[in-house]
Amino acid sequence: MLEKINNLEDFKKLNKKDLPELAEDIRKFLIDNVSKTGGHLSPNLGVVELTLALHHVFDSPNDKIIFDVGHQCYVHKILTGRKDKFDTLRKLNGISGFPKTRESEHDIFNTGHSSTSISSALGVATANKLAGKDDYTIAVIGDGALTGGLAFEGLNNAKIEDTNLIVILNDNQMSISPSVGNLSSYLTSIRSNSLYTCGKDTVRKILKHLPILGKFLIRLIENIKDAFRHLILPNSVMFEQFGFSYLGPIDGHDIDDLVRVLNRAKNVKKPVLIHVVTKKGKGFEPAEKNPDIFHGISEFDKESGKVNASSSMSYSKKFGNELMELAKENDRIVAISAAMTKGTGLQKFSETFPNKFFDVGIAEEHAVTFAAGLASQGYIPIFAVYSTFLQRAYDQIIHDVALQKAHVIFAIDRAGIVGADGETHHGIYDLSYLSHIPNLLIMAPKDGNELSEMMKFAIEHDGPVAIRYPRDSYADDIVLTVKKDNTLGKSTKKKKTLKANGRAIIETTTSEFNASPKDLPINSFKAEILKEGKDVTILGYGKTVKTALEVAKILNNKKVNAEVINCRFLKPLDKTTILSSITKTQKLICIEDNISTGGLATAIKNLILDKNLKYTKFYSYPDAFIKHGSTKEIEKEFGMNPEKIVKDYLNSK
Amino acid sequence: MLEKINNLEDFKKLNKKDLPELAEDIRKFLIDNVSKTGGHLSPNLGVVELTLALHHVFDSPNDKIIFDVGHQCYVHKILTGRKDKFDTLRKLNGISGFPKTRESEHDIFNTGHSSTSISSALGVATANKLAGKDDYTIAVIGDGALTGGLAFEGLNNAKIEDTNLIVILNDNQMSISPSVGNLSSYLTSIRSNSLYTCGKDTVRKILKHLPILGKFLIRLIENIKDAFRHLILPNSVMFEQFGFSYLGPIDGHDIDDLVRVLNRAKNVKKPVLIHVVTKKGKGFEPAEKNPDIFHGISEFDKESGKVNASSSMSYSKKFGNELMELAKENDRIVAISAAMTKGTGLQKFSETFPNKFFDVGIAEEHAVTFAAGLASQGYIPIFAVYSTFLQRAYDQIIHDVALQKAHVIFAIDRAGIVGADGETHHGIYDLSYLSHIPNLLIMAPKDGNELSEMMKFAIEHDGPVAIRYPRDSYADDIVLTVKKDNTLGKSTKKKKTLKANGRAIIETTTSEFNASPKDLPINSFKAEILKEGKDVTILGYGKTVKTALEVAKILNNKKVNAEVINCRFLKPLDKTTILSSITKTQKLICIEDNISTGGLATAIKNLILDKNLKYTKFYSYPDAFIKHGSTKEIEKEFGMNPEKIVKDYLNSK
Repeated sequence: MLEKINNLEDFKKLNKKDLPELAEDIRKFLIDNVSKTGGHLSPNLGVVELTLALHHVFDSPNDKIIFDVGHQCYVHKILTGRKDKFDTLRKLNGISGFPKTRESEHDIFNTGHSSTSISSALGVATANKLAGKDDYTIAVIGDGALTGGLAFEGLNNAKIEDTNLIVILNDNQMSISPSVGNLSSYLTSIRSNSLYTCGKDTVRKILKHLPILGKFLIRLIENIKDAFRHLILPNSVMFEQFGFSYLGPIDGHDIDDLVRVLNRAKNVKKPVLIHVVTKKGKGFEPAEKNPDIFHGISEFDKESGKVNASSSMSYSKKFGNELMELAKENDRIVAISAAMTKGTGLQKFSETFPNKFFDVGIAEEHAVTFAAGLASQGYIPIFAVYSTFLQRAYDQIIHDVALQKAHVIFAIDRAGIVGADGETHHGIYDLSYLSHIPNLLIMAPKDGNELSEMMKFAIEHDGPVAIRYPRDSYADDIVLTVKKDNTLGKSTKKKKTLKANGRAIIETTTSEFNASPKDLPINSFKAEILKEGKDVTILGYGKTVKTALEVAKILNNKKVNAEVINCRFLKPLDKTTILSSITKTQKLICIEDNISTGGLATAIKNLILDKNLKYTKFYSYPDAFIKHGSTKEIEKEFGMNPEKIVKDYLNSK
Repeated sequence: MLEKINNLEDFKKLNKKDLPELAEDIRKFLIDNVSKTGGHLSPNLGVVELTLALHHVFDSPNDKIIFDVGHQCYVHKILTGRKDKFDTLRKLNGISGFPKTRESEHDIFNTGHSSTSISSALGVATANKLAGKDDYTIAVIGDGALTGGLAFEGLNNAKIEDTNLIVILNDNQMSISPSVGNLSSYLTSIRSNSLYTCGKDTVRKILKHLPILGKFLIRLIENIKDAFRHLILPNSVMFEQFGFSYLGPIDGHDIDDLVRVLNRAKNVKKPVLIHVVTKKGKGFEPAEKNPDIFHGISEFDKESGKVNASSSMSYSKKFGNELMELAKENDRIVAISAAMTKGTGLQKFSETFPNKFFDVGIAEEHAVTFAAGLASQGYIPIFAVYSTFLQRAYDQIIHDVALQKAHVIFAIDRAGIVGADGETHHGIYDLSYLSHIPNLLIMAPKDGNELSEMMKFAIEHDGPVAIRYPRDSYADDIVLTVKKDNTLGKSTKKKKTLKANGRAIIETTTSEFNASPKDLPINSFKAEILKEGKDVTILGYGKTVKTALEVAKILNNKKVNAEVINCRFLKPLDKTTILSSITKTQKLICIEDNISTGGLATAIKNLILDKNLKYTKFYSYPDAFIKHGSTKEIEKEFGMNPEKIVKDYLNSK
């Protein structure tokens, strides 16, 4: 059936009775494609019927559907003319895994971060009302996303009379992790107290065998149920207290039910909230069993469900393991996650120290202020969070943490380019929004060992600390090996690949390597010189240190003797070491994985303003949003690869 | 009675029956003092009894009271040893108008921005629980502050068993403006449905005449009422659905009631929410009638209640008036405020265009995303907001506005130093958190006319725009007048004072003044040269343009011929004009009212890196939090005054 559907017009020709078959086709299509490309599988398997019902009942793009977060938009993309592009999903120049207004008129608002849909849909619905239009605006939001404060602010403001706003609460009892908090408990109480679970399927199965009378009876029962719910829960559903008409809970995998309730919602002349219960990963057993693993996934075997997981260790895991060790020694350490327990490497910690671990749901603002409260009483909270999501707590970092010098540690994961999730998810702003905050210490480790050292130091340092690290796997230790003989280019193993958990060995042919940077402890606040040289200073931090070393290595082969400095501290910057080096070399290459304003480049420019250097070149991301693609592709596109950096330098001479 | 109370120990000696008299004394003290110093009057008059009851029942600082926002902490400060410092309130080196941990052990968490208290109190309560302590943690939060998403995130997470968390909902039906939104309607329904209003006072008055039996009957009636409320509102109070024990609503000016309920709350072994109904401005008629005017106020006459209002026009008013005019011409213009309708100058607009005005409550995140939704449908939303509060919507500006180039206009009021509100309120970060956001246009007007021009241009420009302006009054027009004769220093009226709504005339003695900057329209994206000169380039934007002109004027008297440039655009910066000037002068003075990183200084440093200028001096605020004081005092403290800038320049030679 899916073969015939190339656009929404094709879909609109189908009857309601065709939809279950189409749903099965779409499930197969999703599993087949995502097993090859990777992507968000379980969220999309959970909303197949819901998306079909929405497009069956509503008239997109006149009626406007906004998918909160947006990673559950695949079915919508399939129906709206993008089926044939699914082999390019999340790839460079391919379709995005999120709604993009530039892709289709049916994507009417970009999403990516959580909890925005009610507010944006209210804006759209209000605009329609002002313009005298009758179109519907539908926000599809998960129970996880509903824990974000912004969603609440949206609900609180959704009182404008006669706006055709419909909020679909897609209740799958999950964000990426299982949902948490009082709202989640409350939704559970609604589900279990309602007639939703009262043997509906059995009754329906029997009645379906009595064609005409059966249909009538089913409809009658549904109506009685709805009425009855209002009797047993008089004015007690929170959403009704908020001024919404509440419909539900209903089975989100029953197209008949969905179509019936959506049609009913169309006739309500005030904001409606429809409570739809779905199962994440529905229809694919491995995903149903492990919806979190199949939430966002790389390629997998669709028969066995086995994921082609890389065996390498990520910084996230390294962080989690190290924190476990630290917490065993220090009972003041507590950890906080905003619905990213596994993603940030805190799973083991959460199991080992359940009373010292707090998953606050998708609520970064609360996470930060809650942490400040804990710190005010002498605890040392570590908030592990993705760079892009910490953007939501900018004010809380200033106001609740930095201003009172609270000893809160931000473990900022997914810093820099993250790859396939694209422009809403790249962590390339953190240094720009953090560096200007007073009292904040900012570090970035070049390898796994340095992450450990920095974490230990962060626990010791009495004040707010941020440690940022990328999504990548890591090496424990990045070193330049030294060949004492100057056999330029003769080595057969010029460059070994990065071995996770081992040494990333970048062989060089110079003997000027400083073998003892480890003698310089982190609490010295010093940058470390990883390779001494006299011709050009190369500055890096975090993952760009490896790039800097690789540049130095290539330059060595060209008889250019570069000095490589690992900044370690972004704030305070070790000005002495850096100035001493550039005073010697008079040339500077600065490599960072942040945008060009507000990060290392800005700090360095401040430093060298009157230095009149012979060569200065800054590598950072430009003042523009950066689309999806693999991290390697993107780095290359923006000239952040060693070859390009070397070429620039050699061309300048 | 207040005379005897110099610290909390003194207060603790009082009996409950003494408290009403003390409350009256404190009211007089507040009115008397704030009439002389200015400050937040009506919020504090509203919580006199509540604060007395809290300190009577709880044992601070073991029990910890966190005041949300914090401007209602005066009574708390009076009781905790700071009574004698109220003549220094909000003055340089005086006591702050907000809780400050550095002032007293009884201020256990700094506040200033709204909606943080539940999260921070939960952090404190959780710390107590981990440490095995029985102490109570009390968050006092207004119904206005409860509309912020962060407060909801706090409520959603306040499920930790056995934490001694008590949330006092101080329901005065106001933020600064009257409270808005569904939650507000909901609280109203609780108040009106409860027995709170059922002739209590009459019954009590009668019963009070029957001494012993009367007291017993009152107590009995109270208990029956509480039980009865649970019968008529079974499980239907939203806060109970959120896992709180709900007590209330109770009269927040009845100390007996307050003490009784607070004591009851101490015995509940889960989070408690006490719904207290208060009247903002209670006990001072002018403040009761106009709680918004007396919310934060300058000096006033305590007999008549007449405020010593300055007759000058603020930028806020100018903005509001101009927007009115623009909206008459363009029906796509809509305006949004986050509970700051009057403060941002939108009062008239809200009355003239009620269906195009949206007060979203204290919900900046929602304001921005809602605006993006409106813009997606062709409307032009203007969000008028204080610089410091827009910090809370940093992610929404990036994710919902800039990324999709939504035509949303940010009218950023209170930019720069705001004076008496101090470190939590200075608007000195906005350029740092905005300048690195792609697609965003940023402007700052030097005077009222330029604000108008910029607003017109912002309406034309199809993309996101920020216009930032200070709290100050403004001149319509700032000009340098020219004396054709070079009668240096002979004028008797060297410097006229800034006349609001008139011309701010800074007389000079040079004829090199460029009389025609107005020929350069805003849509040229050009900076304007306000005075030509050959010796030194002085850059300013917004209010610092006047400083720049004054510096130029003084320098002229010293035979230094400065060129003064009004940048107008912070992003994109008019590099051509600026470079052309400094290429000529080889000297640069840059004056801005933002912190030193991420604003104009950063952009300029980027520009002049290889220019090797003879003199470069940047005036901006340092990497530190800046305390309260008058704007003038603070500017002087940080060397931002013309005299200091001139001195630096002359000393360098």
